[in-house]
Amino acid sequence: MSLVTLTTDFGDGSSYVAAMKGALLTVNPAARLLDLSHRLPPQDVIAAAYFLADALPWFPPGTIHVVVVDPGVGTGRALLYVRWNCQSILVPDNGCWTALLRPDDPTPHVVRLENARYWRPDVSATFHGRDILAPVAGHLTLGAAPADLGPLVTDWVRISLPRPRVSDEEICGEVVIVDPFGNLVTNIPAADVTTAALVSVAGQPVPRRVRTYGDAEPGALVALIGSSDRLEIAVVNGSAAARLGVGVGAPVNVARPERQ
Amino acid sequence: MSLVTLTTDFGDGSSYVAAMKGALLTVNPAARLLDLSHRLPPQDVIAAAYFLADALPWFPPGTIHVVVVDPGVGTGRALLYVRWNCQSILVPDNGCWTALLRPDDPTPHVVRLENARYWRPDVSATFHGRDILAPVAGHLTLGAAPADLGPLVTDWVRISLPRPRVSDEEICGEVVIVDPFGNLVTNIPAADVTTAALVSVAGQPVPRRVRTYGDAEPGALVALIGSSDRLEIAVVNGSAAARLGVGVGAPVNVARPERQ
Amino acid sequence: MSLVTLTTDFGDGSSYVAAMKGALLTVNPAARLLDLSHRLPPQDVIAAAYFLADALPWFPPGTIHVVVVDPGVGTGRALLYVRWNCQSILVPDNGCWTALLRPDDPTPHVVRLENARYWRPDVSATFHGRDILAPVAGHLTLGAAPADLGPLVTDWVRISLPRPRVSDEEICGEVVIVDPFGNLVTNIPAADVTTAALVSVAGQPVPRRVRTYGDAEPGALVALIGSSDRLEIAVVNGSAAARLGVGVGAPVNVARPERQ
Repeated sequence: MSLVTLTTDFGDGSSYVAAMKGALLTVNPAARLLDLSHRLPPQDVIAAAYFLADALPWFPPGTIHVVVVDPGVGTGRALLYVRWNCQSILVPDNGCWTALLRPDDPTPHVVRLENARYWRPDVSATFHGRDILAPVAGHLTLGAAPADLGPLVTDWVRISLPRPRVSDEEICGEVVIVDPFGNLVTNIPAADVTTAALVSVAGQPVPRRVRTYGDAEPGALVALIGSSDRLEIAVVNGSAAARLGVGVGAPVNVARPERQ
Repeated sequence: MSLVTLTTDFGDGSSYVAAMKGALLTVNPAARLLDLSHRLPPQDVIAAAYFLADALPWFPPGTIHVVVVDPGVGTGRALLYVRWNCQSILVPDNGCWTALLRPDDPTPHVVRLENARYWRPDVSATFHGRDILAPVAGHLTLGAAPADLGPLVTDWVRISLPRPRVSDEEICGEVVIVDPFGNLVTNIPAADVTTAALVSVAGQPVPRRVRTYGDAEPGALVALIGSSDRLEIAVVNGSAAARLGVGVGAPVNVARPERQ
Repeated sequence: MSLVTLTTDFGDGSSYVAAMKGALLTVNPAARLLDLSHRLPPQDVIAAAYFLADALPWFPPGTIHVVVVDPGVGTGRALLYVRWNCQSILVPDNGCWTALLRPDDPTPHVVRLENARYWRPDVSATFHGRDILAPVAGHLTLGAAPADLGPLVTDWVRISLPRPRVSDEEICGEVVIVDPFGNLVTNIPAADVTTAALVSVAGQPVPRRVRTYGDAEPGALVALIGSSDRLEIAVVNGSAAARLGVGVGAPVNVARPERQ
């Protein structure tokens, strides 16, 4: 039985997550549900893109993901079924899933959801996660064919995540995620950063380079390659975000002395 | 295998949710558990009532719901099994579930939990969710008959949610939920609100009426019919609660010029 | 099919929980997962110890628990498989699980995870929960033998939780948990506290002793035996932590007049 994961910006206290689960289970009471997160920043498509890029590659083939960060709910924006890496993603057409695509990936198989036979009979103007995406996911677990959900499309919203500027002398990137520990996760890939590189964030130098948090004493400000294989700035057993007073968007500079 | 949902005010950080899950699984290790929310406002029976009214109607027949918002734990208040709409609810007798009843619904089948054979042997004075409701839910998934849980009762605590006052000229309601987006959900049903109606909240006029959030520009203050089919005040891609500085209980006025 | 519970300090908003779930399901797509909490205080091994001591005893035999509070990730600290009370715990060797042991328990069966055949092929330096513990849990659900995970060990990190000092005249303990209701849970066992005892916290007397919260009027400051069978200080329908302005570590004194 296929597994359905749920990722939203609904928060944990509202009834919206519950309503979506109920609508899905109404279609298939035996569906297996798994929460990924319901605390994505409200209506933040870029944050959703980073979340999906860091989370979905770890899931096995056959997983169905319902992703609802949907500032355009009820407008003309489409809803999509995306076949990616043998997994299925049901998502508003806001581009958040396109961060999963690598430059040399084949063109993904994308269907625009139009077949209302798989939707709730009464579709509200404000909650397509409950009224369309959840029931479609339920039908997929029952064996509905993606091709029956609507027409194949070849155009969709693409988002471009901020990419670091790389030269021989330096890399200019930025903080793209502040994780719950206060670690500053950047958009600078590990491959671009040598161990001799000098890192600074928002103009403040990061004095130490380590392999993992515990390699320096508690309280030390360190740079390392984090769990997403990107450069990260951390305070050992503390919060770099709080210490440095910086957040998402802060500039990160990596000087490459060995290249000079 | 029946599904058991869990809804509490325990918070996500405490061991209470875990203990309740363990106590249920100790009775039936194969039980399927599903979190609805553990972040209901502490001991707020009215908030629980709104949550259940907005969440439970979406679930399929056969679902078992364990709901623990229980300021009276350990006192003489009863614990109930409620049969509602082919679903089962295990809940302290504080009335939160009675908001589910419609005026013309048949009298629900309600049992007072008295048969300690289905409880943990040692019942604490402070945690009946773990010691009584969770094991009873486990036994229900194993096929225990509701009639065996205790005597049928015909009296229970009823709560009355605040209802709007409706006249030919205006509707006087209030904000009853602030959702995680900062949307102000009112107690005014969609059916009472024409599109020409003039909406104000806490004396502040809401200039625009829209069908869905994305129908106005970001930052616009709008009124619309929300996901629970009630009037809602929102800021597009923002927080109406923060913008207007109002919360639960704020008065909402709907003037009906076309009736004058 | 064995159940796997997940307990971490990752927070609910990050992709780390999702990545760990995906890594586990990649090994066994049919594994049953259950969240206990992802909001343990960051890198707080003592808080994790109290959480496990209050949560794990409620689970049935055969449960597999993955517990990741891991300030030492990537350093030389070991990762352990622990057999406790017919349950399995996968955990960094930081001692948090040792609070589960009672003085007269038999020596637990502990294996150091060394067999990389059960790990992800690429193990990062910063996320062993995803790269080692989750896949090992997946393999356990598929029937892997604990003895095959690595060598038996007889030495591991032990933590000693603060114990109250008990004399004939008084007990000097402390607040060890502030629960989401603001209740102050102490380390003083119920057995040590008679009903005539006089309780004070941080020098402030607690005027009433009750059996359960609802036994006093809303707003009353009360002492009672809480859900973990330890002394607790609470404000009825309110927050003792906020009222008294105290938190974890605050001294709690129990005078025993009847012994004098």
